[in-house]
Amino acid sequence: MKIGIADTTFSRIDLGKIAIDELRKYGVKYERYTVPGIKDLPIAVKKLIEERNCDTVISLGWVGKTEKDLISYLALSIGIIIVEILTNKHVIDVTIHEDEGRDERELSRIAEDRVRKHVRNAIDLIKNPKRLEREAGMGKRQGYEDVGPILR
Amino acid sequence: MKIGIADTTFSRIDLGKIAIDELRKYGVKYERYTVPGIKDLPIAVKKLIEERNCDTVISLGWVGKTEKDLISYLALSIGIIIVEILTNKHVIDVTIHEDEGRDERELSRIAEDRVRKHVRNAIDLIKNPKRLEREAGMGKRQGYEDVGPILR
Amino acid sequence: MKIGIADTTFSRIDLGKIAIDELRKYGVKYERYTVPGIKDLPIAVKKLIEERNCDTVISLGWVGKTEKDLISYLALSIGIIIVEILTNKHVIDVTIHEDEGRDERELSRIAEDRVRKHVRNAIDLIKNPKRLEREAGMGKRQGYEDVGPILR
Amino acid sequence: MKIGIADTTFSRIDLGKIAIDELRKYGVKYERYTVPGIKDLPIAVKKLIEERNCDTVISLGWVGKTEKDLISYLALSIGIIIVEILTNKHVIDVTIHEDEGRDERELSRIAEDRVRKHVRNAIDLIKNPKRLEREAGMGKRQGYEDVGPILR
Amino acid sequence: MKIGIADTTFSRIDLGKIAIDELRKYGVKYERYTVPGIKDLPIAVKKLIEERNCDTVISLGWVGKTEKDLISYLALSIGIIIVEILTNKHVIDVTIHEDEGRDERELSRIAEDRVRKHVRNAIDLIKNPKRLEREAGMGKRQGYEDVGPILR
Repeated sequence: MKIGIADTTFSRIDLGKIAIDELRKYGVKYERYTVPGIKDLPIAVKKLIEERNCDTVISLGWVGKTEKDLISYLALSIGIIIVEILTNKHVIDVTIHEDEGRDERELSRIAEDRVRKHVRNAIDLIKNPKRLEREAGMGKRQGYEDVGPILR
Repeated sequence: MKIGIADTTFSRIDLGKIAIDELRKYGVKYERYTVPGIKDLPIAVKKLIEERNCDTVISLGWVGKTEKDLISYLALSIGIIIVEILTNKHVIDVTIHEDEGRDERELSRIAEDRVRKHVRNAIDLIKNPKRLEREAGMGKRQGYEDVGPILR
Repeated sequence: MKIGIADTTFSRIDLGKIAIDELRKYGVKYERYTVPGIKDLPIAVKKLIEERNCDTVISLGWVGKTEKDLISYLALSIGIIIVEILTNKHVIDVTIHEDEGRDERELSRIAEDRVRKHVRNAIDLIKNPKRLEREAGMGKRQGYEDVGPILR
Repeated sequence: MKIGIADTTFSRIDLGKIAIDELRKYGVKYERYTVPGIKDLPIAVKKLIEERNCDTVISLGWVGKTEKDLISYLALSIGIIIVEILTNKHVIDVTIHEDEGRDERELSRIAEDRVRKHVRNAIDLIKNPKRLEREAGMGKRQGYEDVGPILR
Repeated sequence: MKIGIADTTFSRIDLGKIAIDELRKYGVKYERYTVPGIKDLPIAVKKLIEERNCDTVISLGWVGKTEKDLISYLALSIGIIIVEILTNKHVIDVTIHEDEGRDERELSRIAEDRVRKHVRNAIDLIKNPKRLEREAGMGKRQGYEDVGPILR
């Protein structure tokens, strides 16, 4: 198994490095592809799948605070989904939004937690889908603590 | 007939379990595929159709409350429709929006009602399309009581 | 010529019945396909064209009042256009928005007028395109009275 | 060279007639295709290219004032771009927004100016691309006077 | 290596000229293609790749201030991403938004900085991807000074 890591120079945190650190814990091979910004991620993801033979890709996007950034986030999201549909591969579309944290310290904590958890998700989608099935409906969160299921 | 169930670990209610419980009443076979969040659903749906031979899929998404979540909901919706168009299969795109209920109890009731009714819709789209035709324009609702037709 | 009618059980008015009543005046054959809601319409339209040999389709959508409904309306609109592009067939994408009328009586009047006029549009797109060309720029409206051209 | 003209009966100004009048000045052949509204334009444009052998198409859309109209405008815009991408032909996507002018007189002036200038753009994209290159960055406007370049 | 430059006559700054000036410093060959506005850019980009054999393209868009302009920006962004996905080539989608600067002087400075930096990004994506990888997560900005990484 080989996992692609697509990340950006726009990001204020080296999200790719966190992902790679996490991947190493599991002994998974990886390919990294860094692009300028989030609108460049869909084609980078496609190239990681088609030209570098990745089985799945973790796309790491950093989204600014403006309305224009949210529009770019929509284009990114649609683009990633089209790449998945055309390649029949999963892509974990991780995004950190600059306005998520009250300060840089909190934003950093959110980013690290989200990336590490989604690395595990990407691996399990390929190797251990039963773990995800066991956690269906459990209110899992990435970047925050799990909110847990609603008691019924 | 085999129906796919695509659901998420993000959801705070085990929507897949409700769908499976309902499917069993009708003796319908199913395949389940759990992914992290709503943006992962379109490719999961495509895989259920193409790799696991499902005749139709019920996609079960749980949507957060923020503007970013609504944008992801749009990307999900467009993605599901593209998968339907490319595979020529129906996908029932069920979503629960976290802000629909006044409290967790109401949200839970909405979710259960919506999933069960849409399981019946998915089955009837394949096996009994005449039932849907008879109910055309009848103001059917999933998650709420039917509002009924406008009297003319 | 055969025209497809795609409609929903979500609708509070039997739009398909109105369309069929209008089609009968012209002696046009039709196929009807009823689905639960608007996000199910694009694939229904595609199936009417590809599996039931319709020359054109009238898609009859009923759109709720919320922001989420408007997002679904966008996904529907893009989906219908993609189906047209892939099949090279016209689809008349008729939608009734629940907040268009001040009351149910007005909404009902709008819906009936819009559906009947668009049935004529669908027929003329195939059989009598010159009628549409003669009315180019004439401020034609469906659901309301024509506003007419701007006098220049 | 043959240019397609796609326009609507929804429009309150006969934009197609203006386009044809302008095309005649240049002795260019044309095909006209009138549809009900803006969501019908992408497939009309594709048919003008594929079934009537147009080298390029001028799409003439009239957009209402409501939020729903803006959503339809987005679907139209994406649809036209997809048609261009699939056919490898330019389409000049001209739209008049009903709220652009303070009154009908101004709206009429905007529409006429925009259509005539874009007819020239469509011709030059095929026959005289150097003219467009010379005007790159010159702040050209259609519907209004050119704003001109920023002095640096 | 040959790089495409797609720009517009709508722009108030000759962004293509800045890009070409920067490309010359690196001795890179280029092809220029000027179109009227941003919605014409995706097809121009595709033609630069497919008909003029460009290895990558820098798309230079100038976006107005209105809500309609933001919608066109979304259509542009999705269109560029679809072109990248279909051609398997990178396209650097550079946009200048008219409301970014407090005055024309600042807007001009933003535009020049953004275009020059993105020319280097386009070249390095092909020739020197390791430079981008070294700058991953460094908070690089185009149009503004780099904000730099968050200290962790």
